[in-house]
Order: sequence, then C-alpha cells, then structure tokens
Amino acid sequence: MKNIQVTLAKRPNGKPKASDFKIVKSKMYKPGEREALVKNLFVSLDAGFRNWMDEGSGDNVLPAMPIGQPVMGLILGQIIESNNAEIPKGATVMARLAWEEYSLLTPNDWWVEIEDDGSVPLSYHLGVLGDTGMSAYFGLTDIGKPEPGETVLISAAGGAVGSVAGQIAKLMGARTIGFAGNDEKCKRLVDVLGYDATINYNSESLDREMAAACPAGVDVYFDNVGGPLLETVLDHINEGARIPFCGAVADYGAQSESWGPSNLFQIVTKWATLQGFMTHTKLDRYPEARAQLKEWLASGQLVAHEQMYEGVEQCGVAFADLFAGNNFGKAVVHVQD
Amino acid sequence: MKNIQVTLAKRPNGKPKASDFKIVKSKMYKPGEREALVKNLFVSLDAGFRNWMDEGSGDNVLPAMPIGQPVMGLILGQIIESNNAEIPKGATVMARLAWEEYSLLTPNDWWVEIEDDGSVPLSYHLGVLGDTGMSAYFGLTDIGKPEPGETVLISAAGGAVGSVAGQIAKLMGARTIGFAGNDEKCKRLVDVLGYDATINYNSESLDREMAAACPAGVDVYFDNVGGPLLETVLDHINEGARIPFCGAVADYGAQSESWGPSNLFQIVTKWATLQGFMTHTKLDRYPEARAQLKEWLASGQLVAHEQMYEGVEQCGVAFADLFAGNNFGKAVVHVQD
Repeated sequence: MKNIQVTLAKRPNGKPKASDFKIVKSKMYKPGEREALVKNLFVSLDAGFRNWMDEGSGDNVLPAMPIGQPVMGLILGQIIESNNAEIPKGATVMARLAWEEYSLLTPNDWWVEIEDDGSVPLSYHLGVLGDTGMSAYFGLTDIGKPEPGETVLISAAGGAVGSVAGQIAKLMGARTIGFAGNDEKCKRLVDVLGYDATINYNSESLDREMAAACPAGVDVYFDNVGGPLLETVLDHINEGARIPFCGAVADYGAQSESWGPSNLFQIVTKWATLQGFMTHTKLDRYPEARAQLKEWLASGQLVAHEQMYEGVEQCGVAFADLFAGNNFGKAVVHVQD
Repeated sequence: MKNIQVTLAKRPNGKPKASDFKIVKSKMYKPGEREALVKNLFVSLDAGFRNWMDEGSGDNVLPAMPIGQPVMGLILGQIIESNNAEIPKGATVMARLAWEEYSLLTPNDWWVEIEDDGSVPLSYHLGVLGDTGMSAYFGLTDIGKPEPGETVLISAAGGAVGSVAGQIAKLMGARTIGFAGNDEKCKRLVDVLGYDATINYNSESLDREMAAACPAGVDVYFDNVGGPLLETVLDHINEGARIPFCGAVADYGAQSESWGPSNLFQIVTKWATLQGFMTHTKLDRYPEARAQLKEWLASGQLVAHEQMYEGVEQCGVAFADLFAGNNFGKAVVHVQD
C-alpha cells in the first residue's frame, strides 16, 4: 500500500505557485509506540502556513518546513490504527499534519478530537465550525457588536472568514458592505452572500467608492486580513466605531508586508476601538458558538460556502489559488471518503 | 481702562516660537446685548490650539485664528459685567476665549460655569480637574484597567496628562514606567512623580532601554500624544495588552505628522486593544471623576504639578515652551488675581 504526498519542491518566492509543490508516491507509514495512523479525509487551505515555507521561519508553533517533505497543514481525518490509548481507532480528529493521503500522528503533533454528530458535513469543521467561523462569530459578537441598521464593512468579504462574517452581521440586523478585488467577485458577494453593497478595493477611486457604499459611515470594520485598506477605512469610520482585528492560529503572522496607517489618530478623534483577537483565546466558548452556528445552518439562515478541490494532488493548486485571490468561501481539498 | 492682549503676529512655521506672538495694548471691551465681560484669571496652554494657527485650518470647533487678533485659548475667569441672564456677574467660568486680560463672552462662545468650592486652587480646573486630568483618569479606569503588579507605560510622562496618569496608575497598584525626552526629565519623573523606571525616547538604543525598563513586558500603554513611539512599544506589549489612546477636545488634531506603525498586526497576535477616546464623550461622568481626584488630592496621594507663568504677556513664551518640551505638569499662565 502506497501513500500519496504533496511535498515542498522549492521555497516559494512571494506568492506560492502550484509548481512550488511536487506530488510523490511514498511508502505507507507504520505507527510506532504512542503513534497512530490517520486516514486524511480533508485538507484545509490556510494562508498562514505560507510562513513556515521560508528558510529559518520556524517558531514555537511549527519548525520551518523542510524541502522535499510533505507540506504541513490542517487536516481532518480518521484514526485507522493506534498505539496511543488517548486516540482510539475510529476517532475523527483535526490535526496539524500534512498534505498526504495518510499521516502519522505522533505525541508531538497538535490534534483535537471532532465530535461528528452527522448534523453537518464533516468538512464544515475546517470552515464555518472551525477557526475561520469562530473568527467571524466572536469578532462580531464580542467586539463588533453591530446594532440593527448599523453599517458593517468586511475585508476579504468572500473569503473563509468574511463569507461567514457577512452573513452573521446581516443576521444581527446590520447593513453589510464587502471588500473584494474585482467586479465579478463583488457581484458574487451580493448575489451569493447577500451583501447590501460592495467595494472593489482595486478601484482607482477607492475613497469615492467607500463614500458611495457607506454613505452613513462605517460603524464596524471587520478586518480579517490586516493591511493597507485600514488606512482608507479609518477616514470613513463613525464616532464610537469598533474594528475587530482578527487572526486565527493558522493565520499567525500571515501579515508579512510592512505597512502602517498614517491616520491612526482617527482612532482617537472618533473614539474608536481597534481590538485584536486570536481564536485560540476563546476555546472555552467554541461549544456555545458552534451551537449557534449549527442552529443558523439548520434553519438555512446561514450557508457554508466551500470551494472544494478533489484529490490530495490538488493541494498545491488550491494553495496557490488562495494567494491568487481565486477562492470564494473556505478552500478545502477532499482527499478521500 | 486698557486691555492687554497677546496676538498672533505671524503663522508659526512648525513649532511655535515666542516671536510668533505680539503683546498689544487695546481698548477695553464693552459688552453688548447678551454679552458678558470676563476678567481672565488663568490661561491654559494646550498644544491642540496650534492647529488653528494655520491658514485655512478652521473647523467645526474654531475658525482659523486671524493674524493680528488675540490668540484663542482656554481660560478661567470671572464674569465682571453681564447682559446675559445665563451668565450672572460674579460667576467663575471656563471658556474658549483668548490670551488677554479681559475677554468678551458672546453667545457663540463655548463656556461652562466652574463650581469653585475653595477646596483646591482654582487653576486645578484647567489641569488635574480639567480635560487633561479627565484623560488620565478615564484612560486608566475605563480602558487601561491595570491590575496590581502590571506594567503601565506612559508617553509624555511628565506632561499635563502623563503627570496625573503616572500617579493614578501607581495608586492602582501598577508598576509605572514613563517616557521622557532627556535624562534630566527622566530623573524628575522618578524623583517628583514617583515613576518606578523611565525611558529616554531619544535614546539610540531605544528598544534595549524598553526591554530593560519593562522586563515583564507592557500591559498598559497610555498613549496621550500619538506618534511613532507606538511602533516601538508594540514590540513589547503582553498578550491582552490595553492601549488607551487619548485626546482632549483641546488636543483635537494635535497629531499632525504622518506616521504609521508597520507592526500593527501585533494588536492581533497579542489580542490587544487600542481604544481611542475623547474626554467630551464622558462629560456626564466628570463629577464622579472629580470627586475621586479631589479625595486623592486632599489625602496627598495625588499631587497636581503646575508650571505657572506670571502675567498674560508670558502666554507666547509658555506656548513655545510646550513645543520645545520645556514643560513639566500642566502649563498655566496666571493673568491676575
């Protein structure tokens, strides 16, 4: 029995390309003491893993990925063999493993067991019920707190976090405005995700588009990417504005460019709040958030948007798409049933 | 009877100099209908008024100051003649008037009546009991909320806001660290204001000084000036840090330089909060704050530091000192008894 892996062929220069990765056939793992064998079902594509592809990029979360080794990522899988009593055979786990059909789970790897009650597709645990959905939920309920009728502006509005945040803000009664990088995506934000208006952030008259889309100003700016758009938005915030500034563990350090808004003093004059948060600080409240999200999913008030790729071989393509802006909703690779 | 005024002789180029202002003798005002005559007792020096000295700088608070006219500022005075039933003769007022011995208070001018119970020197209403004291108080009680033993770092630590904030943070049980621009001022921060440690922000090894003064990191950064120090501080904040980012009405727009911290994403990774506030949004809570501050003043736990200048003719010098960094505590001109 063989394993299929996608390895790091060379270190990406800037945005990753599919050719930075290589599909290889390799020997099947044989779990040793306290190890388990995972049949990977889904791979989550998260921009933050790009960080560990650089030379010398290791930190307390992961070491720098070695060339020629399978690319690290977040996966959903099933334990099919186990020498570790804490991870019984048959368990469904989310783990920080690799782009491959089967992975070895060692005691050093990060993992959590997933309670698969069959009420939602399993892959949702990587998206709407995972860190990206949690970012959307807590960013709005704990920080943004939009009042009905207020204007909520969302960056990367069609992405994994934004596609959920836009819908939640709408459920909370807000007027929702989404940023996207081209007119076609903007149209999808309205047609598919129900945004009230959109702004093409590549527009040459960005400030004018902002004013047109947010005539009453911005009460909440949900910034889930970081970056220079904040400067433009700060010129349009209302007094008392809230800016949830969100990251998930998987996106840690995703902000690699140097930038700084020259008008940060707007935070004072508009007595606004820029509040950062990392989803892992809210782990104890995931059950509460998941219960609410599942309720909205069940009633159809919330729709989970996934961009699904078929076969582990597609991991490199899917990852490159993420950086090329070719994604809508949560990008996931379906490895096998 | 003559009036002495300090007028704007020319528009300052960058930092104001004493020679930008001119002392003139003029005719005494004669209050018309609904006007009152104010005997000015103290003039408050506030950097924010610099904004209205520029050509075309008028806004919804004040018009641009005309050349040759008395310089606008915040004053404390007594009504000595009144044709306005709302402002009785004998009342003590704080008003946005001018650098002169006597001012005309028209229905268009901003003013509030001051309750002078004699428990503290009247001038305190421009400092520790005025907007700068309120900035210090609310910035710490509402946003910074230091726990005993936490590290509170304060910008412009010897200034009108900082000199009060440092003492309040200490009263709240925090370890207090102050920024100042030279070693002599740093020494005064420790000797006079009781700071636990200081950092000379002009040091060439600023980052190293930061680390030495704040070995346990920064839990609260009280930023009452805005500016590039924030970037340095962001590299030293702890998880969950709070950054009160404060302005008083008088400092509106005082931040004129363009700058932006290139590491703002630290707000996310440290799940920190950068919260702006303007004191005028808390007017309903001034009585509560003043009661507490008066209690601390009465018990000697809090000391009001004033840099007092004698005579209205000193307004220009005092204002220039503010920008040259030659101030310690709240800068006030005593006009007359």
